[in-house]
Amino acid sequence: MLEKHSTELLSKINSPKDLKKLNEEELIQLSRELREFIIDVVSTNSGHFGANLGVVELTVALHKAFNSPEDKIIFDVGHQAYVHKILTGRRDVFHTNRKRNGISGFPKRSESVHDAFGVGHSSTSISAALGIAEADHIYKKDNHVVAVIGDGSLTGGMAFEGLNNAGASKSNILVILNDNNIAIDPNVGALKEYLVDIATSKTYNKVKKDVWNLLGLLSKVGPNAQKYAQKIENGLKSIILKQSNLFESLNFRYFGPVDGHDVVHLSKLLEDLKEIKGPKLLHVLTKKGKGFKYAEMNQTVFHAPGKFDKKTGEILTVKSDKKPPKYQDVFGETILELARENKNIVGITPAMLAGSSLNKMMAEMPNRTFDVGIAEQHAVTFSAGMAAEGLIPFCNIYSTFAQRAYDQILHDVALQNLPVIFCLDRAGLVGDDGATHHGVFDLAYLRNIPDMIVSAPMDEVELRNLMFTAQNSNLGPFSIRYPRGGGVTLNWKQPFEKIEIGKGRKIKEGTDAAILSIGTAGNMAKEASQQLLDKYNIDVAHFDMRFVKPLDTGLLDKIFKDFKYVITVEDGVIQGGFGSAVIEYMVDKGYLSQVVRLGVPDRFIDQGTQEELYKECGFDTEGILNTIHKLVKPRILSNVS
Amino acid sequence: MLEKHSTELLSKINSPKDLKKLNEEELIQLSRELREFIIDVVSTNSGHFGANLGVVELTVALHKAFNSPEDKIIFDVGHQAYVHKILTGRRDVFHTNRKRNGISGFPKRSESVHDAFGVGHSSTSISAALGIAEADHIYKKDNHVVAVIGDGSLTGGMAFEGLNNAGASKSNILVILNDNNIAIDPNVGALKEYLVDIATSKTYNKVKKDVWNLLGLLSKVGPNAQKYAQKIENGLKSIILKQSNLFESLNFRYFGPVDGHDVVHLSKLLEDLKEIKGPKLLHVLTKKGKGFKYAEMNQTVFHAPGKFDKKTGEILTVKSDKKPPKYQDVFGETILELARENKNIVGITPAMLAGSSLNKMMAEMPNRTFDVGIAEQHAVTFSAGMAAEGLIPFCNIYSTFAQRAYDQILHDVALQNLPVIFCLDRAGLVGDDGATHHGVFDLAYLRNIPDMIVSAPMDEVELRNLMFTAQNSNLGPFSIRYPRGGGVTLNWKQPFEKIEIGKGRKIKEGTDAAILSIGTAGNMAKEASQQLLDKYNIDVAHFDMRFVKPLDTGLLDKIFKDFKYVITVEDGVIQGGFGSAVIEYMVDKGYLSQVVRLGVPDRFIDQGTQEELYKECGFDTEGILNTIHKLVKPRILSNVS
Repeated sequence: MLEKHSTELLSKINSPKDLKKLNEEELIQLSRELREFIIDVVSTNSGHFGANLGVVELTVALHKAFNSPEDKIIFDVGHQAYVHKILTGRRDVFHTNRKRNGISGFPKRSESVHDAFGVGHSSTSISAALGIAEADHIYKKDNHVVAVIGDGSLTGGMAFEGLNNAGASKSNILVILNDNNIAIDPNVGALKEYLVDIATSKTYNKVKKDVWNLLGLLSKVGPNAQKYAQKIENGLKSIILKQSNLFESLNFRYFGPVDGHDVVHLSKLLEDLKEIKGPKLLHVLTKKGKGFKYAEMNQTVFHAPGKFDKKTGEILTVKSDKKPPKYQDVFGETILELARENKNIVGITPAMLAGSSLNKMMAEMPNRTFDVGIAEQHAVTFSAGMAAEGLIPFCNIYSTFAQRAYDQILHDVALQNLPVIFCLDRAGLVGDDGATHHGVFDLAYLRNIPDMIVSAPMDEVELRNLMFTAQNSNLGPFSIRYPRGGGVTLNWKQPFEKIEIGKGRKIKEGTDAAILSIGTAGNMAKEASQQLLDKYNIDVAHFDMRFVKPLDTGLLDKIFKDFKYVITVEDGVIQGGFGSAVIEYMVDKGYLSQVVRLGVPDRFIDQGTQEELYKECGFDTEGILNTIHKLVKPRILSNVS
Repeated sequence: MLEKHSTELLSKINSPKDLKKLNEEELIQLSRELREFIIDVVSTNSGHFGANLGVVELTVALHKAFNSPEDKIIFDVGHQAYVHKILTGRRDVFHTNRKRNGISGFPKRSESVHDAFGVGHSSTSISAALGIAEADHIYKKDNHVVAVIGDGSLTGGMAFEGLNNAGASKSNILVILNDNNIAIDPNVGALKEYLVDIATSKTYNKVKKDVWNLLGLLSKVGPNAQKYAQKIENGLKSIILKQSNLFESLNFRYFGPVDGHDVVHLSKLLEDLKEIKGPKLLHVLTKKGKGFKYAEMNQTVFHAPGKFDKKTGEILTVKSDKKPPKYQDVFGETILELARENKNIVGITPAMLAGSSLNKMMAEMPNRTFDVGIAEQHAVTFSAGMAAEGLIPFCNIYSTFAQRAYDQILHDVALQNLPVIFCLDRAGLVGDDGATHHGVFDLAYLRNIPDMIVSAPMDEVELRNLMFTAQNSNLGPFSIRYPRGGGVTLNWKQPFEKIEIGKGRKIKEGTDAAILSIGTAGNMAKEASQQLLDKYNIDVAHFDMRFVKPLDTGLLDKIFKDFKYVITVEDGVIQGGFGSAVIEYMVDKGYLSQVVRLGVPDRFIDQGTQEELYKECGFDTEGILNTIHKLVKPRILSNVS
């Protein structure tokens, strides 16, 4: 299917400057080589795929027309910036993409002068571009600033805030709307329908043509009509070309839609746009997965497919009944089970239908499942509105993206004590997405909020039972966080059991020290406590606290009375997190145990596998073991002596 | 100027049901009485003013046309809901508005069944209304759901997220755009210009008329033209009436603009709109301060003027050179002083130009001062973009609204270590705005973020010196929080002094206990320590820590070695806040002092004066004094015995 791999041209491109010499045919060939290069590397290394194939020509054209790093190109989200990275001196290290100590999967200022602004979360590019443009204006630079944003990202309210501000400014920013009609799942919302309408010319082009026909005709029928025709032409133009367009309403000059895979035309167009002053938007139509038929056919799967066979399109993930499921799938199956019994349950996701596994509920209960687009703020307050009417919304948001809705969780849900259940997927260190995506702050920022129940299951069965427990509208806001990836239990589909709010459980008896863990980090603690016993005869008790808020104060009283050494373990920041809550209680009550808090330290953590990062942060099995060994050993020895 | 006060009709309105019987003339009279009643009460009691005068007729018409509480009316922000409160059974307690144990200044679910959704922060109403509408749809209710949102609130991205989702839904929600062309300060942004353009018919109505003229003419000139005319008429209608409108682009049916002070017409219109299915928007033009000429003339001042003379319009605040300034004015003066020297400094506010006192800089340096509209997320990332280019942005946001930008502070600023200086005004308990507006979470949620400098001045001079210190781009992100209202220092304009990052200072020597305070709560601690000495001969040391992050660990080492009793004081939540940071350090280092943390407890705090609320939370002078007296007394006595 694929042509013979060639990097004849690509191998000579070491910076955007090298692009300038290429002629039209060479631009086309370079695009072809880039596509092959990405297919080669991503199929064997994994990473984001479809979005990058979609912007090959656009990125080549951008670097041909503009002069990075003097001109600034800001990619929204940034998982589609592989071509940009390859063209800006990172071709030869591209195989280290998303690996520990390798290059980041997203633009990153510290990585390259060509990465004008670091990204990861959606919808930031227009704000950043406008800030850069205004700064350059103050510094009297005459460079260009370009934001490249997808139609999915454009549904995030922050993008609108940026457009609204930019449209009223005199800045020369160019917004490129990369419209592929899909985010990770197919894009949703009125804006998407509007863009499809423009792109397919349903109304816009048809009427434009009719108007021109009419005006042509009018010029023949007489002076009176001609007078009107002339008078009207400007008005009509202004309506059709200006007012008729959402972006023109916001004072952006709108251009397009144009074919995003015609690199020659795009290059020329971008050259032309450089001459046009003021805020402007170029609407570019692209196809996610372009040039790799399996990705074109199955865009959601090929968003970030893992490793795959580039000949057959087969995804190489080993699926096995003998492996525990992903936590997301436990959520997806469980909400469906619960919703079948409890008619008040609804499911809400901000554009993560597949990622959250809420697609199962959507298939069976489309009227009770809501994909609201990339709009975390709206997702939360929309859920609050539903809860105000008596429904039980399970609002599923990735932990890192829930940061976007901190105010709504606090002000719209908790302050009104509404029973919205937040299921925070991808909580803790997420692995290869890196610093922008680690969901490590949630325990800390949620436990500050009055009336929140803040919980985390240690395994699949607990996740199910917490969800089962949460569907009680008298409990108020309830958060349940669980990590990316697979769990630990094969036989996870157990009958539901209610969990008492604010009660932990004992995993293991012990006398030398107590481990208090929250969430799935408890499994590493469990393993560590077993190894401590086996290897060193250190007998450590282990408690799965399950709730950061309310804390199990009865259990804590007992623990602080019984244990001199207490170790807290969490897959989250230790400043203000779970361990911090534990020592607040300890100090309030005047207990004097020696507490060591393990978790994510006070710095941003880069990408790597989850296991590598747990180790780096010192709360993998070995880290927990070593900490306790160091702490407890002296006492053991002194007992012996 | 005002007619003789009459409440003949108003006194009979005890619920919206009583409105139904009124005829057209009575609706007009009721509106007049409501306006007089509000002027009477607010002029003597203070509160939000102009916005409420602006929506008198609109609110009467809403309650005439709809049946609350079955129909749901959600006011965005909610400081304009006084008429609604008065009409829904709270007329006789309206004089307790915003007072401790009185009614809230904002709609509040726990206060009335007619308050369909609690509000306070901007731009939430469409999301909440859509959630309610979808829930009602699931429950097969056939009620109506209305969101009333101002043109200012509409610039908040969350409102756009709601529109985008609602436009794609089949819900019957009605959005009322209350367009007065002003937020607290005059509204800004492209959207505002667009609304003015519609309202003043600059393009829209002119062209519409031209087109109709042309079509009329065409029908006379012959069959060929007639054919085109017919064909084109539908197309043009769809362009002019549909595509030409921003809201229609988002699949809302758009109606208006209409006069928001014609209560009779509004009532009829709303009746008609009840019959129209699907998402729809009614554009209502109102005047902020309508009917009170001083408020119409000076809309920003009369947004929330405090007490005033209703005859002369004179604001009754006592201005005196002998009173210390407001902290906001210290900020406003100081940034100007700094910016005159340092050309890299820029000022950014999300729609709080007067409230932040950044209007002084705007007047002198309009090119370096940016009011970006109600758009906290954008304000932060816009600032990040500017910082990426070398500027030093002072981004001024009220603490409670900065919650909206938590993700941007973390992901766009801190993660890139950009030198954005966050000046968080209205931090701590704000008083009569109540639970939705207390800025008590910032210390807790900011100290979790790596690389943030988190500081709070104890007085005006420190605020100036922290701002002076912060303008060093090598320091990275830097937050400075200060409270609402006046300070403590008459002679505050001292020469600048650099403060060493992470260093506290000793306010008072002492031996019996140590108070560690952060921010202006330190002044109450100072007074308490003096009274303890004077009244009880308890000699307490007092340290103004200045930084929550980085902590002054050298000072803490000394304090924990020297003092058995340590009391932390902060005007913020104690879960995860400043005191929590102090005990994290203590426990990490194995110190064993007895620590009591004073601050805002783990519940939402309602309105009252700041002094009442400090007392309620137990960290006013008396609260601090009593806490220490209880703690230390035993030791003093045992020393004596």
